[in-house]
Amino acid sequence: MRLPFDITHPLLAAAAWSTIAEPGNSIAGALVQNLGASEALAWLISAANNQCLSPVLGSGTAARHLSRAVASWVPRLEDLDPRRTVETLSRVGGHVLIPSDPRWPQRLHDLGTASPFSLWVRGSADLDVQTSRSVAMVGARAATAYGEHITMDITQDLCTRGFAVISGGAFGVDAAAHRAVLTQGGYTLAAMAGGVDRLYPAANHQMLRSVMESGGSVISEVPCGALPMKQRFLARNRVIACLASATVVVEAALRSGALSTANHATHLNRPVGAVPGPVTSMQSAGCHELIRSGAAMCVTEGAEVADLAGGMGVDAAPGKAGADATTDGLSQNELSVLDSFPARGSTTVTALARNGGVSVPGVLSALGVLETRGLVSACGSQWRRGK
Amino acid sequence: MRLPFDITHPLLAAAAWSTIAEPGNSIAGALVQNLGASEALAWLISAANNQCLSPVLGSGTAARHLSRAVASWVPRLEDLDPRRTVETLSRVGGHVLIPSDPRWPQRLHDLGTASPFSLWVRGSADLDVQTSRSVAMVGARAATAYGEHITMDITQDLCTRGFAVISGGAFGVDAAAHRAVLTQGGYTLAAMAGGVDRLYPAANHQMLRSVMESGGSVISEVPCGALPMKQRFLARNRVIACLASATVVVEAALRSGALSTANHATHLNRPVGAVPGPVTSMQSAGCHELIRSGAAMCVTEGAEVADLAGGMGVDAAPGKAGADATTDGLSQNELSVLDSFPARGSTTVTALARNGGVSVPGVLSALGVLETRGLVSACGSQWRRGK
Repeated sequence: MRLPFDITHPLLAAAAWSTIAEPGNSIAGALVQNLGASEALAWLISAANNQCLSPVLGSGTAARHLSRAVASWVPRLEDLDPRRTVETLSRVGGHVLIPSDPRWPQRLHDLGTASPFSLWVRGSADLDVQTSRSVAMVGARAATAYGEHITMDITQDLCTRGFAVISGGAFGVDAAAHRAVLTQGGYTLAAMAGGVDRLYPAANHQMLRSVMESGGSVISEVPCGALPMKQRFLARNRVIACLASATVVVEAALRSGALSTANHATHLNRPVGAVPGPVTSMQSAGCHELIRSGAAMCVTEGAEVADLAGGMGVDAAPGKAGADATTDGLSQNELSVLDSFPARGSTTVTALARNGGVSVPGVLSALGVLETRGLVSACGSQWRRGK
Repeated sequence: MRLPFDITHPLLAAAAWSTIAEPGNSIAGALVQNLGASEALAWLISAANNQCLSPVLGSGTAARHLSRAVASWVPRLEDLDPRRTVETLSRVGGHVLIPSDPRWPQRLHDLGTASPFSLWVRGSADLDVQTSRSVAMVGARAATAYGEHITMDITQDLCTRGFAVISGGAFGVDAAAHRAVLTQGGYTLAAMAGGVDRLYPAANHQMLRSVMESGGSVISEVPCGALPMKQRFLARNRVIACLASATVVVEAALRSGALSTANHATHLNRPVGAVPGPVTSMQSAGCHELIRSGAAMCVTEGAEVADLAGGMGVDAAPGKAGADATTDGLSQNELSVLDSFPARGSTTVTALARNGGVSVPGVLSALGVLETRGLVSACGSQWRRGK
């Protein structure tokens, strides 16, 4: 077997691996990272040319794993020509990034051997720069009006704080997040499960075009023409989790794919937030489980998400407190005396002392403070509430 | 000064201290716990008879504190006669409990010197038995329909699990909790901030009567005739938190009194739960803060509250999972092959191997499993989805 393209070309070799191995395949990742994409490809071809693999691979458990992997890759060597898919991408104005490119997001190295072989990118941004301060907003495709509202609210707040917003381009929470960035002005990135030549889902085609036209990006780790299969959605989620400084799940049912994104973020030591909602809503049940299990921090607004994702100190959320009450800062004694006043009419110092359980000097000193605050006033030897 | 009743009578002496000192006053608590209620009362009278207290009390910081406390108690010695308030209680069918009574809730000892001097009880239940397996349901008086709905839902579930439900008899969450117990059948206890002779708030009078008639209890640590002053509400919250195995905050704004109950529960090492809600609702903001700060566990249903409050193991909440998918239990290979099928029409083993990234033997073995499950079927040498 001989391949019809120059396998020593780094970009073509990386693109070839994106076609041969499924996203996140750690055996292929280990081969490529150790030998380089071209050398690994040459090795695979020689293995494929051997009818019996054992002379090449040896024996033992690791060899059996590798042998099984090779057997799954070989069918894809037929007709393999990454020049075609790279050409398809460039016809729609996109380009392929490989790990040696300076625009390659450095964060992706955290995926180790499960890191993508290449990124297929539409949009002109420098991915490494743009994703360095970012939040992944993910959640249910069947989001409720509440979920979409909160997604837009938090996303717009994050935009004004200079965060890029990453999502998956799907219906529901994803679309609400991308649209909020388009409205607010900011950078948004949509990571697809299939090839970026066919924007998926079709109903979001116009939105995804707007993402690119606004200076944002649509990316995938699978080549043009690759279908958005279920396993690729799950694999795509690890890329979203890895690209972002933090992942926020806005709404998710108990079996939602968004939980897999949260799970990847946890494994990557990225902070995870989950937005609570009505306990009567199935679309919040997954969020509540994340919070209950300690896998996610409960977040209710953009400031709290920024606190999670941002630089220490710089993005810390302010503490929360209710509106100041008129009785703030009063001592126990003063509060007791104030409580002892009748709602209407006036009273005496002696009655205040008895009702409030405060000594007479204590009552007199408290009355002084309360009078200054305008909470009580004297009329003759009697006292009453108000000025 | 001489008091008109027998101060050596344990119940009258304890009742007297409930009148003299405000709830939770630790100085009075320490005196009574160290000397006994009667002896402590005798000491107070002698201190009151001394115009200058320093010969009795000595000097130093502790003495100054005690001296100030004594000065606040002396005005209440005038006209003090607990026989009257005890008589009032017995006219409405109630009775006073003191710590030596076997029905005294043993849990209250956890309050140390802030423990009540006596409990003024209407209802015939054995408080110690009834509160031994119990949950405090607390929250906003201005609860939303959502908050009341969830309160009733969780409360009814707790009733069927044999938990007593404790609350404060107020509007909103409190009333929803008591009413749910009345509907479901179970034991409920309302702890009042004022005397139990006048059921407060007046609008809940009928409900509180129903609580007593259903075998439940209405209790207070302050005597008949005592007014429900603001400070007494806050002090009452510590009794609720201490009586219950766990405290659940259903809805609470950021300055809600329910947060003080949660705070007391934390200090008493009782578990605290908070029910999440829409982040757009101010009445859930306090709950979210409790969850965010780690002060409360996020709870969404009765089973999770039982898990928090109940005996280890016995009341553990079941794990959560969504509905079973038809693909549950399939291997990675089998899922990849299934994903590689076209939505309509048939396909070949070779195409499945190429699209799924699986070896030909891998495809064949996967097809066997998928066929058994009825997910794919063979037609000649081709395969298609479905039976």
